Amino acid sequence: MTNAEYRRLMDLVEENLVGFLPEVDHKSITLHDSMAYSLSAGGKRLRPVLLLATCELFGMNPKEALPYACAIEYIHTYSLIHDDLPAMDNDDLRRGKPTNHKVYGDAMAILAGDGLLHSAFEVMTKDMLLYFDQPEKLQHRAQAAYEIARRSGVRGMVAGQVADIESENKQCSREMLDYIHLNKTAQLITAAVMAGSALAGISFEERKSMSTFGEALGLAFQIIDDYLDVCGNQDEMGKPVGSDAKLNKSTYASLYGIEATVQRANELLDRADEIIAPYYDQAEVFHAVIEHLRGQLK
Amino acid sequence: MTNAEYRRLMDLVEENLVGFLPEVDHKSITLHDSMAYSLSAGGKRLRPVLLLATCELFGMNPKEALPYACAIEYIHTYSLIHDDLPAMDNDDLRRGKPTNHKVYGDAMAILAGDGLLHSAFEVMTKDMLLYFDQPEKLQHRAQAAYEIARRSGVRGMVAGQVADIESENKQCSREMLDYIHLNKTAQLITAAVMAGSALAGISFEERKSMSTFGEALGLAFQIIDDYLDVCGNQDEMGKPVGSDAKLNKSTYASLYGIEATVQRANELLDRADEIIAPYYDQAEVFHAVIEHLRGQLK
Repeated sequence: MTNAEYRRLMDLVEENLVGFLPEVDHKSITLHDSMAYSLSAGGKRLRPVLLLATCELFGMNPKEALPYACAIEYIHTYSLIHDDLPAMDNDDLRRGKPTNHKVYGDAMAILAGDGLLHSAFEVMTKDMLLYFDQPEKLQHRAQAAYEIARRSGVRGMVAGQVADIESENKQCSREMLDYIHLNKTAQLITAAVMAGSALAGISFEERKSMSTFGEALGLAFQIIDDYLDVCGNQDEMGKPVGSDAKLNKSTYASLYGIEATVQRANELLDRADEIIAPYYDQAEVFHAVIEHLRGQLK
Repeated sequence: MTNAEYRRLMDLVEENLVGFLPEVDHKSITLHDSMAYSLSAGGKRLRPVLLLATCELFGMNPKEALPYACAIEYIHTYSLIHDDLPAMDNDDLRRGKPTNHKVYGDAMAILAGDGLLHSAFEVMTKDMLLYFDQPEKLQHRAQAAYEIARRSGVRGMVAGQVADIESENKQCSREMLDYIHLNKTAQLITAAVMAGSALAGISFEERKSMSTFGEALGLAFQIIDDYLDVCGNQDEMGKPVGSDAKLNKSTYASLYGIEATVQRANELLDRADEIIAPYYDQAEVFHAVIEHLRGQLK
C-alpha cells in the first residue's frame, strides 16, 4: 500500500500500537515482549486503518478512536498467534518471521494471545471512563466495543476459526466455505468499519450500508487470500505458497476454479466501490484499499 | 458450601450460565458444546456469587447483574481450560472430570477458551446497550466491565499465570510467590467484588474498603489452596493431591511451612471479616464464605 492517506493512518497505528498496551509490572516483562513481538511483526494494519478511516469519513478526529483501532489489531494479532500454534495450523513463519511460539514457546504464545485479547477490552473499557460526563459519546463507545466483541467472538471470528479447523482434511461444501470466509475474515473487517461508524455516531441507514460495505470488502479480501495461496509468491505473502493446500483446506480456488475466483472477487469489490462512491471526495483510503486488492488479482 | 443464601445466588448463576452465552449458528455447535462442557463441570461459582452478593449488599437486584456475574465465570473457566492444556500444566482431570482438551482435543480447547473470553465481553457490552437512556446506569456498567478487564488481563490474572508458568522447576522468592498469588487468584476475586460495587454505584470510600476485602479474601483463598495441595484429599479437591509439587511449583506451604501457612490464611480471613463486620445483618454470604474457608484449615 503506497497511498499517502493510507500511510498516514497506518503510521498513526504503528506509533501507538505497543504504547497503548496496558503497562505491566517488570515481573511480566516476557509477556509484554511476547505480545510486542507479534504486534511489531508488520502487516498492513488493514483493520485499524479502516476503523480510523471510517471515523474520519464521518467527521471524527481519528486520534480519539485510537483505543478502538489498537484493540481491533490486538484481536487480529492474538488470533494469528493462536492460529499458528502446533495444536492449530502449526506454522513456523508469519510475515517472514518466526511465529510467536517458535520464539517464546507454546505456553507463552497461548498467554500472549490471551493477554492481547484481554488488553483489547481493557483499553476500550478504560477509554469509556473518560466520557462519563458526555453520555452520547459514552454510548458511541459502548456500541463500538459491542460491534468488536460480537463480530470477533463465537458468532464471528472464533466461529470461523472453529469451522476452518474442523474442515481440514475433508471436502468442504460451498455453503461451509462461505460460512468460514464470512466469519473467519469478513466479520472482523466489518467490525472495524462498524466500530468506526458507531464512534462517529452516524445514522442507522448509513450504518446499514457501511455494514454491507465491510462485508463485501472482507469477503473479497479472503477470496483474494485464497487466490494468492495458489497464484501468489512467498515474498509478497510472507508465508509459504500452498500452505492451505498443505493442510488439505478447501479454498475458493479449489472449489470454484481460478477464473470464477477472480470474477467473484471483482464482483465483491464492485459492490464495495458502489457503496463508497457517494463519498469519493473524502474516501481516498477506501478507494486505495479496493484498488490495491484489485491489483493483486492480476 | 451449605449456606442457603449462598446456594440461592449460586443457583441463580447455575440457571443462567450456559443460557447467557451468545447464541451460535448450528455450524458452531461443537464450539458451544465445548464451552458448555467446561461451564457445566461444577465448582463453587465463588466469583459470580461474590459479585451478586456485593450488588445485593448495596441494594441492587442481583438479577440485573447476571451478565457480569456470568462474564466473570466465563473468564475463570477459560483460564482453567487454557491452564490445563498440555503446553501449560498438562492436567487430565479438573473437578473430577476429564479436562476440556481430553474430550475435545487441543485445538478446540484453545478456541473454547478464546470463545469464553470473547463471550464475557460480548455479554457485558451487549448489556450496556440496554442502558443508553440511563446515563448513570451505563456508567456503572462500563466501570464494572473495566474492573473485570483490568484485573483479569496482563496486569492481573494473565500476569499471574505467566509468572506461575515461569516459576516452575525453580526456587521461587517469597516476593514472587506473593506476586503470583495476588495476580493469579486474588485479582479476579477482587474483580468480582469491585464489579459488584461498581454496578451498585457505591461511594469511593466504600469501594476502597471492598477492594481491600476482595484482596484479603482472594489471597486467603489461594494460600488455602496451597495448603490443601499438601494436606487435602483428592475427593474434596477434584484433582490429585500434590499436583503443584509434581510440577515443582513453589507454594506458600513449601516456602513457609504448614504452621505459618495456616496462620497467614487466618490473619487474612480476620482482615476480611473486620471489613465486612459493619454489614453483618445483610452480609450472610460473605460471612459463610469466610467461615467455609476457615473450616478447610482444620
